[in-house]
Amino acid sequence: MDDGYRNRGAAAAYLLASKRCEILGLEHLLRMGQVVTAVSELVHAMQRERGISNLYVASGGERCRDRLPALVQITREAEGAFRDRLAQVDSDLAGVPGNSRLLSRIAYALHGLEELCTVRERVRELSLQPEAVIDGYSALVQSLLALVFEAADAAADPDVSRALVALFHLMQGKELAGQERAVGVGGFARGGFSNSLSERLRHLIDHQERCFQVFADFADQTQLGEWWNARGAEAPAELERLRRIAFSGAMKGAVDRALSDVWFRVTSERIDALRQIEDRVEHGLMALCRRRIAEARRDLESHRNHLDALTATPPDTGALAVFFDRGAAPGGEAVDTGCASPQLGRSLIDLVRSQSARLQTMSEELEQARAALADRKAIEKAKGLIMRHRRINEDQAYRFLREVAMAQSRKLADVARDTIAMSDIFRERG
Amino acid sequence: MDDGYRNRGAAAAYLLASKRCEILGLEHLLRMGQVVTAVSELVHAMQRERGISNLYVASGGERCRDRLPALVQITREAEGAFRDRLAQVDSDLAGVPGNSRLLSRIAYALHGLEELCTVRERVRELSLQPEAVIDGYSALVQSLLALVFEAADAAADPDVSRALVALFHLMQGKELAGQERAVGVGGFARGGFSNSLSERLRHLIDHQERCFQVFADFADQTQLGEWWNARGAEAPAELERLRRIAFSGAMKGAVDRALSDVWFRVTSERIDALRQIEDRVEHGLMALCRRRIAEARRDLESHRNHLDALTATPPDTGALAVFFDRGAAPGGEAVDTGCASPQLGRSLIDLVRSQSARLQTMSEELEQARAALADRKAIEKAKGLIMRHRRINEDQAYRFLREVAMAQSRKLADVARDTIAMSDIFRERG
Repeated sequence: MDDGYRNRGAAAAYLLASKRCEILGLEHLLRMGQVVTAVSELVHAMQRERGISNLYVASGGERCRDRLPALVQITREAEGAFRDRLAQVDSDLAGVPGNSRLLSRIAYALHGLEELCTVRERVRELSLQPEAVIDGYSALVQSLLALVFEAADAAADPDVSRALVALFHLMQGKELAGQERAVGVGGFARGGFSNSLSERLRHLIDHQERCFQVFADFADQTQLGEWWNARGAEAPAELERLRRIAFSGAMKGAVDRALSDVWFRVTSERIDALRQIEDRVEHGLMALCRRRIAEARRDLESHRNHLDALTATPPDTGALAVFFDRGAAPGGEAVDTGCASPQLGRSLIDLVRSQSARLQTMSEELEQARAALADRKAIEKAKGLIMRHRRINEDQAYRFLREVAMAQSRKLADVARDTIAMSDIFRERG
Repeated sequence: MDDGYRNRGAAAAYLLASKRCEILGLEHLLRMGQVVTAVSELVHAMQRERGISNLYVASGGERCRDRLPALVQITREAEGAFRDRLAQVDSDLAGVPGNSRLLSRIAYALHGLEELCTVRERVRELSLQPEAVIDGYSALVQSLLALVFEAADAAADPDVSRALVALFHLMQGKELAGQERAVGVGGFARGGFSNSLSERLRHLIDHQERCFQVFADFADQTQLGEWWNARGAEAPAELERLRRIAFSGAMKGAVDRALSDVWFRVTSERIDALRQIEDRVEHGLMALCRRRIAEARRDLESHRNHLDALTATPPDTGALAVFFDRGAAPGGEAVDTGCASPQLGRSLIDLVRSQSARLQTMSEELEQARAALADRKAIEKAKGLIMRHRRINEDQAYRFLREVAMAQSRKLADVARDTIAMSDIFRERG
């Protein structure tokens, strides 16, 4: 295990190995944090490219012709940076059991990026509908956000996991704001919002706010402070006014077409502001990883010193710590009993117990952070089932779920879980 | 990532890496299965040593003096085999983030094994009470079973995870049968069972049956067949008769002391029979791992061949699979659409999708298997809280939980979770 500590018995070696595993995990999280930062840079570039491509296609090639190449170039550079970051975690990921899902998500996202050239050609040729441009870019962005979701789901440190859950929901909310921008541009450019378009807008605003709510629930004090300072929680008054116009001017021709430029500017400002917050949250996440690594290294050092001191003294065989400890049942609580023998400082078994107790607490806190992701998984899955069963779209499926939840005064995620459990019945009837 | 496949694009390389990760995970499970087998051999030896040490101490050194050294020798050999198996997974475990808890459990168990020499000395000197012998060995066995629990909790293949959950509960049930043997020997040797002794016996029988129930719930058809053939589910009639005598002869002197030998023989036969089933379940577990590894390797090979075929043909950029797929949302369902282009066989994106869909299904099935472990964790933790708060013992705490669950017609695990959620209130009042 660790030859330097073999003389102290295998137990000490495994204790140190346990500590080193934690450090490895944290170092991996730090590198994944850098991948996540590259993802959010790439997503931001792609959101802009989507917006401008949409305007270009919607205007029949009249507008934004000159702006597109520069935006494509920025996305390409962000893609290059993302691939470089990925290459740096390659060996981390490939050699470790349990990363299969993340790796298959990466394969999916990379395949989407490889398709992007063809899509850009079609945009240039004006051979895609505006809706297809929005949907296509959105699917690609979603495949990138899936990487952040997996990273959050796999993080083993509760604080880092909470920070990643917060970040994922911030990114998801920002993406919905990006879709809102694109959908709204279409409506204003046409001079009015059809029922289905205003319904889609409503869904995007609603879903966006729920994402920001989860962000606020999982953000730490610093992140929350920045969020409130940057007025992240509330859309600016100008945006709210435009939203109101969109909803009230449901008839075609009812709204001023010139508002599409105003809408684009106002929503873009909001999205850029969200990107600023995202950037700060990412920096905070990495600083947190670095702090945790430093703490874990100090712990390891102090454990080593304790174990050195212990070898210098004869073992205290009188206590029989494991033998008369009934708190070590699987899943039971290991209790940190503190210093059993003040003369010796902490004995080996005290160190092992405090390590076990800490890991136990961590795993309980982790479960809480992951519950938010599990809720999301259940809702997404239930939506998919309802969409297929009732042959309705995503917004309608979500509304259906929400109505059932409201009627039964239950949590959306619980209704989603019941829906999944009943999916066999759905299938028979479908 | 995988230089041989770089020409096919990074997506293909990550797809293959995802597949290889699965294989790595399964190979690790196979080696952990060998550790688990060594644990169950060691536990079995320790259970015998506990029984005979208990008889030796309870008889004031008159009985079993000659048998002990041979049994100690068998335990020592089993311990050596266990340490050898551990050494074989060392490099697997130490280099992988996420193994900290398992490693700290190993440290704890090894420390207990290191204390065993001192305990054996005290048994020889007759300087330990019989109850202390039982409790001490039981704590050590529990620390070893905790390794099996962690292995079950960490397994990523749903079938292997189910098999490990079944095996853990079988081992736990057998250990409770071992404690029943030791406690019963004490009562019969004294000629009667005090209230607390017969309460403890009742708890051991009850808890044992619940463990076997979980085993039966998670065992596969083959394991269940063996379980029923070996009459694992039911205690032999002779054992039931002795249990009845124990409960009805609660007064000291009310039961025939000579029955202690009969009790020891009958319970030992039952424990040996359970060991036989355990052994078969372990063989089945390893065969399952080997089958899964072979399947995953065949899959990898077939993926490689498909990808080779794909590079030989120009890419089908017309389809834009990712770009127009809305099923790739994080936590959403990726749907295996089958052969999009029969000419090409399956395209890369079909392979990626089927891999994603498979991993998604696996992770859902895994959650089900782990739910049984989560229930156990919650019940153990709630018991600990109640024990500390009410200053009662484990059996009483369990009975308290069960009474609340019955009175409210709810699942024991749900009551346990509420208890944990309310533990702050407990603490204030305590």
